[in-house]
Amino acid sequence: MCEGVDSKHTPKLGISGKEILYDEDGKPCRSCNSLLDFKFATGRMAPLPISQDPQVVPVAEKIPGSKTYEKVDPPDVEVLGRSSWTLLHTIAARYPKKPSETQKDEMQKFMTIFSHVYPCWWCAKDFEKFITQNSPKVNSRDELGRWLCDAHNEVNKKLGKERFDCNFWEKRWKEGWDS
Amino acid sequence: MCEGVDSKHTPKLGISGKEILYDEDGKPCRSCNSLLDFKFATGRMAPLPISQDPQVVPVAEKIPGSKTYEKVDPPDVEVLGRSSWTLLHTIAARYPKKPSETQKDEMQKFMTIFSHVYPCWWCAKDFEKFITQNSPKVNSRDELGRWLCDAHNEVNKKLGKERFDCNFWEKRWKEGWDS
Repeated sequence: MCEGVDSKHTPKLGISGKEILYDEDGKPCRSCNSLLDFKFATGRMAPLPISQDPQVVPVAEKIPGSKTYEKVDPPDVEVLGRSSWTLLHTIAARYPKKPSETQKDEMQKFMTIFSHVYPCWWCAKDFEKFITQNSPKVNSRDELGRWLCDAHNEVNKKLGKERFDCNFWEKRWKEGWDS
Repeated sequence: MCEGVDSKHTPKLGISGKEILYDEDGKPCRSCNSLLDFKFATGRMAPLPISQDPQVVPVAEKIPGSKTYEKVDPPDVEVLGRSSWTLLHTIAARYPKKPSETQKDEMQKFMTIFSHVYPCWWCAKDFEKFITQNSPKVNSRDELGRWLCDAHNEVNKKLGKERFDCNFWEKRWKEGWDS
């Protein structure tokens, strides 16, 4: 059977086998799905035979009028997640060992607002729930770093990933391994 | 002349030719320099002949007790920058077209606190200065997206990079190019 792009194409599962997440307007959510699943849900990609590598994409064109910027796709849920953890853990790594009251107050607010504005809505809900049950610990760098590491491990658990040993948080995000 | 690692080794310029940035305690700042320059400034890497590719690094070991986590280095200034712009632009892409007063207030606070806690101190100072002179525009998604695009272009100018045409901000960070 050969069909064109169906405007009512709203699959429940993506190519990865994971559930497709939709926005309130019924469109597939780009920040909530992997790029592959997003393209599949928007009817731009048919399921591929296993032997075909979906990572092999043609070289991106330049955007109109630009010499250097290519037509790069907006980040999917995985790129967004990696980027955000990188920023958050590094913020903890640079947080003062003895923060002032203003710094504590700002960090508390920053984490709370982060849980409201994070672009993947279902990830944001989980983070907000975590924050409600585990208020950000902002009394010292180590406290904040370990609190974030625990938050990350909650997500790791949900994704079936290994738990990260939080005793290593500072080596991973501040000191490096050879110092 | 053959010298060991000098504990007072504080070079002004890195392998890249850029200035090495130091923290208040006099140590090279990991979040403010490229990994290559950071390693050079901490005496862990000698300048390489041009023919030798510094990107070729041995396969990372696993961290003690872990089956999957490798000894990945903390992010350098470039990885941190890319990650942070990815998050910020995507936050703008998911910001409401008609935000509530609470949402406007939270976004204003988020950007201001971001400029205080960003881990690369010299980048943070520049962003804080930009915010002081150009208060975050939070009245709509498009306003916020263009304001952030302008902020990013300020950094592009400083780094000698091409200016991004902000008319494309939503295609780059929300819609994609083939829709």
